[in-house]
Amino acid sequence: MTASLPSFFSPRLAALEPYVPGEQPRIANLVKLNTNENPYPPSPLAVDAVQRAAASGLERYPDPESLALREAVARRHGLSPDEVFAGNGSDEVLAHAFFAFFRQSEPLLFPDVTYSFYRVYAQRYDIPCELLSVDDRLRIDIDALADRAARGCGGIVLANPNAPTGIGLPLAQIERLLQACPQRVVLVDEAYVDFGGASALSLIATYPNLLVVQTLSKSRALAGLRVGFACGQAHLIEAMTRGKNTFNSYPLGRPALAGAVAALEDEAWFAQTCKAVMDTREGLSLELEDLGFEVLPSQANFVFARHLQRDAGELAAALRERAVLVRHFGSPRIAQYLRISIGTRDQCSMLVDALNDILAG
Amino acid sequence: MTASLPSFFSPRLAALEPYVPGEQPRIANLVKLNTNENPYPPSPLAVDAVQRAAASGLERYPDPESLALREAVARRHGLSPDEVFAGNGSDEVLAHAFFAFFRQSEPLLFPDVTYSFYRVYAQRYDIPCELLSVDDRLRIDIDALADRAARGCGGIVLANPNAPTGIGLPLAQIERLLQACPQRVVLVDEAYVDFGGASALSLIATYPNLLVVQTLSKSRALAGLRVGFACGQAHLIEAMTRGKNTFNSYPLGRPALAGAVAALEDEAWFAQTCKAVMDTREGLSLELEDLGFEVLPSQANFVFARHLQRDAGELAAALRERAVLVRHFGSPRIAQYLRISIGTRDQCSMLVDALNDILAG
Repeated sequence: MTASLPSFFSPRLAALEPYVPGEQPRIANLVKLNTNENPYPPSPLAVDAVQRAAASGLERYPDPESLALREAVARRHGLSPDEVFAGNGSDEVLAHAFFAFFRQSEPLLFPDVTYSFYRVYAQRYDIPCELLSVDDRLRIDIDALADRAARGCGGIVLANPNAPTGIGLPLAQIERLLQACPQRVVLVDEAYVDFGGASALSLIATYPNLLVVQTLSKSRALAGLRVGFACGQAHLIEAMTRGKNTFNSYPLGRPALAGAVAALEDEAWFAQTCKAVMDTREGLSLELEDLGFEVLPSQANFVFARHLQRDAGELAAALRERAVLVRHFGSPRIAQYLRISIGTRDQCSMLVDALNDILAG
Repeated sequence: MTASLPSFFSPRLAALEPYVPGEQPRIANLVKLNTNENPYPPSPLAVDAVQRAAASGLERYPDPESLALREAVARRHGLSPDEVFAGNGSDEVLAHAFFAFFRQSEPLLFPDVTYSFYRVYAQRYDIPCELLSVDDRLRIDIDALADRAARGCGGIVLANPNAPTGIGLPLAQIERLLQACPQRVVLVDEAYVDFGGASALSLIATYPNLLVVQTLSKSRALAGLRVGFACGQAHLIEAMTRGKNTFNSYPLGRPALAGAVAALEDEAWFAQTCKAVMDTREGLSLELEDLGFEVLPSQANFVFARHLQRDAGELAAALRERAVLVRHFGSPRIAQYLRISIGTRDQCSMLVDALNDILAG
C-alpha cells in the first residue's frame, strides 16, 4: 500500500497472516518434491471425462449441488449423498468447515505441529485456538488432547496422517477424541490417508460429531483440477452447505466435476498408483537412513526427515541448486526437518544422488 | 438438524440466509432462459485449450497466482497484471472483495433492487448495510446515493448494468460516486457489461478507490468453467490476494486457467456472439411489447419485463408447464416482473409462442 492513500482495507485484514503454499516455480526440468503432488498422472478415464465435459456445455452453469460427485463419493464409501459435501479443493472445504463449526467461544484444539493452514483459517474467522504440543518425536499426545477436550472446547482438528510429519493415528485414538468431545465437531483431515493410513469414514454412522475431509489432489492425482470433499452425518453437511451458499453457489466447474467422478470410479488405477508411491516411500526411507537421516514413520506420500549432522535449511538450498525442490519449514520445532514428497523411482534416485553429492562435499 | 442432537453449528450460522441461485434442473429439452447463460458455446479455442490442459499435468497444482490469466486480462484491458485478481467465478471474487474492503463500522450502500447476493455477503461478514430505494421505474437515484455516501459510508456496491433490471448507468454517474466516496471502495460489478454497457475499467488509473468485477460466465460463455476477475489499482488487488490466501491458495484449476486465457484472446468470437445476443434482445423486446409487456431498457443479456394485465408468478408457472424456464423473484418491489435471459433466436421464438398461447387462454 502507498502511504499517501487512505486505507481501503477492512481494518482487520492487515493483521491476517496468509498461508504460504509450497513454491510452484515456472521452471522446467525440476525434480519437484515440495508440494506432495502425485508423481503419476491421473486415471486416463478422468482425463477423458474432463475433455468430454469441455466439448459441450461449458456455456451452462454446473450443478450447484455437485450431486454426481457427491453420489460417486457416497458409492465409494458406503454413505448417502446427503452425507457428502464437495468443494473447490480440500482447502476450500476446510475453510467452510471452520466457518460452519468452529466459530465458538471456547478454543479450537489442534497440535502445534500440523498443517499450517489451520491457524490461518482460525485467524480469518476470529476463532480462538489452543495448540497442544507434540512430543519430541513429533507425536500427538492423544491423552492430553482428550483430557483438554473433555474440559470444554470449540472443537478439534487433526490431520491423519499428520502433516508435515506423515505419522498416522489408529482409529481407536480418533474414537477416544470423538468421545471426549461429544458437543463439538472433531474434524479429521485425511488428505494423505490413501497412502497407508486408517480412514475414519467407517465411524461416521456412529459419531454425529465426526467430519472427515479428503482431497482428490494427492491419491487421485488431480491437484490441477481442485476437488475436495467432506463426509459426515447429514446435519453437518447441511451446515456446510448453508455456509457455502453464502460464499459461492457454484464452486466446482463442469470439467472438475466430470473428472472427479471418473477418477473415483477407476479403482484399479488408484490402487496401482498408491501402491507404487508406498513402495517407493519404503525404499527411499531406507536410502535416507543410510545417508544419515532420521526418517519419521510415514503413512503419507512424503517423508519427514532430519539429518543428524547437517542443517536442514542448508540442505534444502543445496538441493535447490541441483534442481531438486523439497520443502523446508522455518518454524522452530521443525526447522531441522525436510519434507520430501515421494516422486517416481527415478526422481527419488536423483534426490539421493544429489544428497550423496552434497553430503560428500 | 435433529432436535435430539447438540448443535454443532457455529452460533451465527443458523441466522444466515443463503443466496438462492436460479434453478438448474436436470431435465432435457427445456428452453432455459432463467440463469442468464450465453445461448452460444464458448470460443472453440477455449474448448481446445481446456482439452489440452487436461491431457497432461493434472497431477500438478495450478499456479496459485493465476498469472497467465491475469496477464491475459491485463493485455485485453490495458492494465498491469498486478491490477488484476482472479477467482473461481465472479461470486467468489465478490466474496473476497466484501471481506477485504467492506468490514467497516459505517454501512455499505447499495440499491434495494440489485443482485441479491450482495445482502448475503454482507450478512456473512457482519457488514452493516443501508439499502437505497430505486425509483418506480427501478432506476438508481445517483444523486441520493452520492449525497448519502458523502456523509460517510463503508463503501458502495453497484451492478452496472444492474441486475435484475438490465438498466445501465453512464460512466459520468459512476465517477460522481467515486468522487463522493474517496475514502472507501466503490465496487462496480460488470457481469453484464459486454452486452452494451459502459465499462469503468478506463477509470482505474484515475480512481484509487475503484474496483471493477467481471466474469467469463456470460459474454465469454464459460459459466461451466467458473472464472471471474477484479481489476483495480495494485493496493486493492494486494488486499484481495491477502484475503484469498486465508481461504484457498489455488482457486482456479489448470483447465479453467487455460480455457479462460484462450477465451479472452478470441476477440472475433466474443464480438460476434455478443452482437448476436444484443440483436436478439432488441427483437425480443419489441415482441414482448406487442404481447402487452412493459420492457425495461436493457444493456444486459436478459430483459426485465412485466405484463400489464397478468400476474408474473402465474406467467412463470405457465411457461414452466410449457418447458420454458424464466426467472421470477418473489421480493415485493419486483414481484410483477419476469427476468428473461436472451436465448438463441429459436429459443426466443419458442418463448414468444408459449406466451401467445398462455395469453390467449
